[in-house]
Amino acid sequence: MLEQLELFSRYLTVDAKFPDNFLIDQPCCKMVLEAIRYKPYSLQILNQLKLPHQLEYDDITGSEDGWNAIRDMRTRGAPAIAIVAALSLAVGLHVGNLSDSAPEDVSAYIVKKLDFLVTSRPTAVNLADAARKLKKIVESAAKVDDNDGAAVVMAYCDAAAQMLISDVSDNKAIGKYGAEWIEKLAPGEQVSVLTHCNTGSLATAGYGTALGVVRSLHAKGSLKRAFCTETRPYNQGSRLTAFELVHDKIPATLITDSMASALLQLKGPSDRIVAIVVGADRVAANGDTANKIGTYQLAITAKHHGIKFLVAAPRTTIDLQTKCGADITIEERPGKEMTMMKGPRFDGEKLDVNQVEVVSIAAEGIDVWNPAFDVTPAALIDGIITELGVVEKSKNGEFDLTFAMEAHNESVKPSSIGGLYAA
Amino acid sequence: MLEQLELFSRYLTVDAKFPDNFLIDQPCCKMVLEAIRYKPYSLQILNQLKLPHQLEYDDITGSEDGWNAIRDMRTRGAPAIAIVAALSLAVGLHVGNLSDSAPEDVSAYIVKKLDFLVTSRPTAVNLADAARKLKKIVESAAKVDDNDGAAVVMAYCDAAAQMLISDVSDNKAIGKYGAEWIEKLAPGEQVSVLTHCNTGSLATAGYGTALGVVRSLHAKGSLKRAFCTETRPYNQGSRLTAFELVHDKIPATLITDSMASALLQLKGPSDRIVAIVVGADRVAANGDTANKIGTYQLAITAKHHGIKFLVAAPRTTIDLQTKCGADITIEERPGKEMTMMKGPRFDGEKLDVNQVEVVSIAAEGIDVWNPAFDVTPAALIDGIITELGVVEKSKNGEFDLTFAMEAHNESVKPSSIGGLYAA
Repeated sequence: MLEQLELFSRYLTVDAKFPDNFLIDQPCCKMVLEAIRYKPYSLQILNQLKLPHQLEYDDITGSEDGWNAIRDMRTRGAPAIAIVAALSLAVGLHVGNLSDSAPEDVSAYIVKKLDFLVTSRPTAVNLADAARKLKKIVESAAKVDDNDGAAVVMAYCDAAAQMLISDVSDNKAIGKYGAEWIEKLAPGEQVSVLTHCNTGSLATAGYGTALGVVRSLHAKGSLKRAFCTETRPYNQGSRLTAFELVHDKIPATLITDSMASALLQLKGPSDRIVAIVVGADRVAANGDTANKIGTYQLAITAKHHGIKFLVAAPRTTIDLQTKCGADITIEERPGKEMTMMKGPRFDGEKLDVNQVEVVSIAAEGIDVWNPAFDVTPAALIDGIITELGVVEKSKNGEFDLTFAMEAHNESVKPSSIGGLYAA
Repeated sequence: MLEQLELFSRYLTVDAKFPDNFLIDQPCCKMVLEAIRYKPYSLQILNQLKLPHQLEYDDITGSEDGWNAIRDMRTRGAPAIAIVAALSLAVGLHVGNLSDSAPEDVSAYIVKKLDFLVTSRPTAVNLADAARKLKKIVESAAKVDDNDGAAVVMAYCDAAAQMLISDVSDNKAIGKYGAEWIEKLAPGEQVSVLTHCNTGSLATAGYGTALGVVRSLHAKGSLKRAFCTETRPYNQGSRLTAFELVHDKIPATLITDSMASALLQLKGPSDRIVAIVVGADRVAANGDTANKIGTYQLAITAKHHGIKFLVAAPRTTIDLQTKCGADITIEERPGKEMTMMKGPRFDGEKLDVNQVEVVSIAAEGIDVWNPAFDVTPAALIDGIITELGVVEKSKNGEFDLTFAMEAHNESVKPSSIGGLYAA
């Protein structure tokens, strides 16, 4: 425990010197894909329905636009949805000129708009959670003496912007700590890592968790190559992660999920593949981790080949209420996700990005089992990379995540438990 | 060694009592899918290009038809190609009425036609190998005193038919021995197994190897459920194996390759999944096995979960010239196989089996690694199921395949080393 205390205090010191814009201002990061572009009066979102074949940003000018973008799934990923909702309203408030209204009227207006935004995806707990926290902030601001309507608007917009800033800076811290930890596995050498699903700019507010670690290794010149699985059945790896890696010009190779073991066997030594890094939908109190289906199998092969297995997870995905993996219910999804594939039509020579077709890739009538995620036991996990540092097991072989969570300042960060990387 | 001798002599005795038509005449086998339908004067092949969405047999009336069917890939699988070529010529000879010709003219005619058939797929070593053996047979028959042209035709047709009969009966023996071995893992209980790729009627002359084991378990009432992987990137599992399982009404469930470990973790005990059974492209002298990509990963997870891992392989796939897996060169295939998917168009309500489209399922510009198969070390394999019995490791932990091969009577069986399950 003392060791962990020292570990965390060291990380906290580092963290304090690590401002939000630390990486944003580095030249190497200019090329990093942004899914959300925000400045006061202006919000743009990357239309994820057009990915990976078209890179198109949509202007969002108010909460109606935000509601539609979320409903249409043009924006995805639990934190991203909450942040786009909050920022769309902020843009609308800037345009709307409510400054002359009474503070309680402004507050009531914002609360009404937040309730409306939550209806865009009623099952997204993260969105509801963020709305609840934002409501508290405006209601408090409206009660402060001397605050006028403009001050309430300002309080709201600051809080909404802070959500974006915090999420990106948390991811950058995860990337930094993860990269430092991995670099120590082969000091002075470039290393390769394998990642799964999409945990990048497209699944978060920006930069990414596991993919943030890859980005950070690359920015530091320490990455030889990133390998990504296609991540059946929804192919977030081949569609989204591959897109981000190509976009950011990170040396990268796509494999099928079934090739991970052959990769470690055949290319592990020559490409110095030292770790598999994945994200998390939910980390239980004992470190058992629910994540996209296929994660557990990757952890088994990492153990078999003697390489490290790391989970990159902001502390908002750590759920101390869930004692262990057995307490997590596995969602089963429609079989059609596995037996059908969607994509732009290829005519034998070129893609027609405007003609999207769905084709069947399985025999009709076959029964399908399609669990959305699986649970990797803590025993197979070497480290959990949070925004405050990498949590390793103590000498008794167990993670102590309670300690990591005690340093937790919730602010308006939406919880990202469950569905963070859901499509 | 003595133990193995006893093992084999026992199997050989059983084998001698096990006529070629043993299973064909069982009512339970009437529903088994046939890829090749042959009787003298008549040959039909299942058009595999139309699978899994259409079940269509094409009449083959001679070697021209056979050549076209192989060239068009309407028939596939190394043994099946050799057998269809041989039988197509047999049908043509029956029709052609060569009986009045001189025996040496008949022999020369057949040799010329075999040379022609080999050009349908010049890289298929199995086809060339079978043609070579058949040529010897007709050349010998032509030299026998008193043989007329009709006798040479007869010798050829018998040898060609024997190829089909032997391949199917070998597969049935594999199915029988594999099923018996697996049944002993949970006496008196129904068990489930997981299989990979397509090793069924569609990849062989009939019945199948690993899928033959599944069929045999089912025929004996010992199968609870078969699970099959979709087998990325070419989806032989979801397209072909799933089709065979649905066709034969075997209780079966499709999973993605990435779900195998979660399946064993979550359903292993409740569904009594006792083994993973796969085929082989080539088995080296020490038992290391090259098979469809993803096999090695399944062997690792079988070991991790403490269930058996079995390779079903006719002795024609055992290659004593290859000492171990390290001597096997891994073929890498075009990345497009992974980034594109082909299938009939789904309009949101129904499939149009006549409108086949190719769609892109990956970001453009991503580098791809696409090995066709991988090598599973003998250490991870519990048994190799041949047509003479299941070879287990001896007390020193090693397979002795030399012994198994010594009982080998080659006759006209085409070697199936390499590419047996290639698409």
